[in-house]
Amino acid sequence: MTAGVNRRVLLARRPVGMPTEDDFEMVEAPVPEPGAGQALVRALYLSLDPYMRGRMNAGPSYAAPVALGEVMVGGVVGEVVASHTPALEVGDIVEGPLGWQDYALSDGRDVRKVDPASAPISTALGILGMPGLTAYFALLDLGRPRAGDTVVVSAAAGAVGATVGQIARLKGCRVVGIAGSAAKIDYITGELGFDRGIDYKATDDLGAAVADACPRGVDVYFDNVGGATSWTVFEHLAVGARIVICGAISQYNLAAPEVGPRNLRFMLVKRARMAGFLVFDYENRYAEGRARLAEWLRDGKLRYREDVVEGLENAVGGFLRLMRGENFGKVVVRVGGERR
Amino acid sequence: MTAGVNRRVLLARRPVGMPTEDDFEMVEAPVPEPGAGQALVRALYLSLDPYMRGRMNAGPSYAAPVALGEVMVGGVVGEVVASHTPALEVGDIVEGPLGWQDYALSDGRDVRKVDPASAPISTALGILGMPGLTAYFALLDLGRPRAGDTVVVSAAAGAVGATVGQIARLKGCRVVGIAGSAAKIDYITGELGFDRGIDYKATDDLGAAVADACPRGVDVYFDNVGGATSWTVFEHLAVGARIVICGAISQYNLAAPEVGPRNLRFMLVKRARMAGFLVFDYENRYAEGRARLAEWLRDGKLRYREDVVEGLENAVGGFLRLMRGENFGKVVVRVGGERR
Repeated sequence: MTAGVNRRVLLARRPVGMPTEDDFEMVEAPVPEPGAGQALVRALYLSLDPYMRGRMNAGPSYAAPVALGEVMVGGVVGEVVASHTPALEVGDIVEGPLGWQDYALSDGRDVRKVDPASAPISTALGILGMPGLTAYFALLDLGRPRAGDTVVVSAAAGAVGATVGQIARLKGCRVVGIAGSAAKIDYITGELGFDRGIDYKATDDLGAAVADACPRGVDVYFDNVGGATSWTVFEHLAVGARIVICGAISQYNLAAPEVGPRNLRFMLVKRARMAGFLVFDYENRYAEGRARLAEWLRDGKLRYREDVVEGLENAVGGFLRLMRGENFGKVVVRVGGERR
Repeated sequence: MTAGVNRRVLLARRPVGMPTEDDFEMVEAPVPEPGAGQALVRALYLSLDPYMRGRMNAGPSYAAPVALGEVMVGGVVGEVVASHTPALEVGDIVEGPLGWQDYALSDGRDVRKVDPASAPISTALGILGMPGLTAYFALLDLGRPRAGDTVVVSAAAGAVGATVGQIARLKGCRVVGIAGSAAKIDYITGELGFDRGIDYKATDDLGAAVADACPRGVDVYFDNVGGATSWTVFEHLAVGARIVICGAISQYNLAAPEVGPRNLRFMLVKRARMAGFLVFDYENRYAEGRARLAEWLRDGKLRYREDVVEGLENAVGGFLRLMRGENFGKVVVRVGGERR
C-alpha cells in the first residue's frame, strides 16, 4: 500500500491578486511510512475554502501563512490505511487538516472520527464541518436572530451562506440572500426556502434592491463578501442591527485594497453591533453545533449542495473557480476515488 | 422682565461642508409670555456640541433636522424667571433642550432641575450632562474596559474624550489619547493623567505612533472622530478588541464622503466587536450615571475644562471653532451673564 506515490500540491509562490495555476506545483513524493504512534491516512475528499487564500499571503493574520514549497493547508476526509497507534484503526474514516495531498500521517490527535453511517462522509467538510459550524455559531451567537427579524446573507449560495439562511429560517426569520447568478437565486429561494434573493450581478442598484427586499430594514447582516456589497447593505440597517463579519471574499484577490466611502456613522445612527467571527474560537462547542446540524439534516430541515471536483490534479482549478464565485455549493475535491 | 428682547439664532440655510456664519441668522423677537402651565426660562449657558452639525443636514438620521428658519437646537442651563406651573419656581436652575436663544418656555417636563450648590451649573451641560453621560455609558457598557486594558480615545481633549480617558484610568486601564495639538497632549497626559498622548497633526506616521504607544495592541478604541485616524487605529487592535463608535467629527463637514481602504477583515482577524452609541438610549439610567460622575468629580477623581464663549452673538463663531477642532475643552456659551 505505502509503496505508491503521494501527490502533493505545494504553494510555489505567493499569488498577487487572483491566484493562477502557476502559483502552485504538484509534486510526487513517496507515501510516508507511519512511525510508532502514527497512522497513515489516504485522502478521500479535500475541502476547498475561501480562507485558504489568506494563508497564501505572507502578511500577519489569525494563522501562519503556508510557507513557500510547503503543501497547501486544507481539511481532508480520509481513510486510515495503516496504523501504529491505538487511537486509529485501519478502515476508520477521519477528518482533519491533512492538506492538499493523497496521503498524510496522523497521530490521531489532529483528526476526528467520522461515522460513515450517519451522513455522506464529505459532509464532514461541509454542512457538518467547518462551514456548517461557522454558520451555526456565527449566526446564532453573534447575529442573535429573533423570530420576525430580516436576515440578509451575502454569498448566500455558498457553503456558509446557504446554511446561515436555512438556520435563520428555522429561527423564524425573513431571509434575503445575495448571490451572483440567476441559478443561485433560484436555488436559495426554491430549494432552500429563502424569502427573497438578490442577484447582485444583475442589478444596477443594489441599494434599491436591498431596500425593496427589506422594507423594515436589515436586522441581521451576515457578511461573507465585504466590499461594496456590504457597504451598500450597511445603508439599510434597522435600529439595533447586528452585523457578522465572517468573510470578505470580494477582497481576497485584490492586488490593491478597494477604496470607497467608509464612514461608520451608520453604526451610531442605528446603534448597530458588528462582530468578527473565527470558528476556532468555538472549538469547545463543536460537538454541540455538529449534533444540532446533524439533527436538522436528518430531519430534512437543512439541505446542502456540493460542487465536486474530480481528482487532486484539479484542486487548483477548483480553488480558482471558488475564488471567481463560479462554484455552486460547497467545493470538495474527490481525491482518492471511492472508499474501498 | 418679559418686556425685553429674545435673541434667537436660526438656521438660515443648510451648510454644505464646513458651516459659515452666513448659514445662521440672529433675529430679535419679543420675549415669550408663559401661558398657564408654562414657565419662562432665561438662558445662562448654551452647550455647543458636534452632534449639532448633523441636525443642520436635511438627510435622515436618528433625530429630525432643524427646519430652515427655526431656532438651532441645543442644551441650555437657565434660570426660571416667571412661572405659571407648579413644576417650576422662579429662581430654579434648570437644564434642557431650549435652543440657541435668550429665553424659552418650558412646561417643566422638558427640563430637569440643577442643584447650583453641588457643582458649577455649566457642568450640567458637560461632565454632568450629555457629554459626561456619553463617556460613562459608552465606555463602560460598550467598551467594557478591564483593568490592564489599553484604551485609545480620539478627540481625547474634547468633552467626551477627556472624560472617557479619565474613567478608563479609574478602571485601571492604560490610556492613550489622540488629539490635535501639543497643548492638548500636555493637558491629557499632565492634568488628566493619560499614560500617553499622540498629536496626530504632528506625526507623519500615525500607525507607527499607535503601535509604539500600544505595544500589546488596542483593547478598546473609543472613536469620536472617524475617518483616517480611526482606520489607522483599526490596524492595531488586540484580539477581542471593542470599538465604540461615538462620533465622527472628521466626517461631519466634508462636502463629499471621505474614501479610503475599507476592508473590515480586521474585525474577523481580531474577533473584534464594534458598537454604535447614542446617549438617548440610556435615558432611564441617566440618574445612575450622573450620580457616579458627580461622586468622582467631588472626590477629585475627574477633572474637566471648559472653553467659554462670551455672548450668544458669538455662539456661531464658537461652534465653527468646535468644528475646526480649535476648542479646548467643553464649549459653552455664556448667554445671560451671571445668575442674579
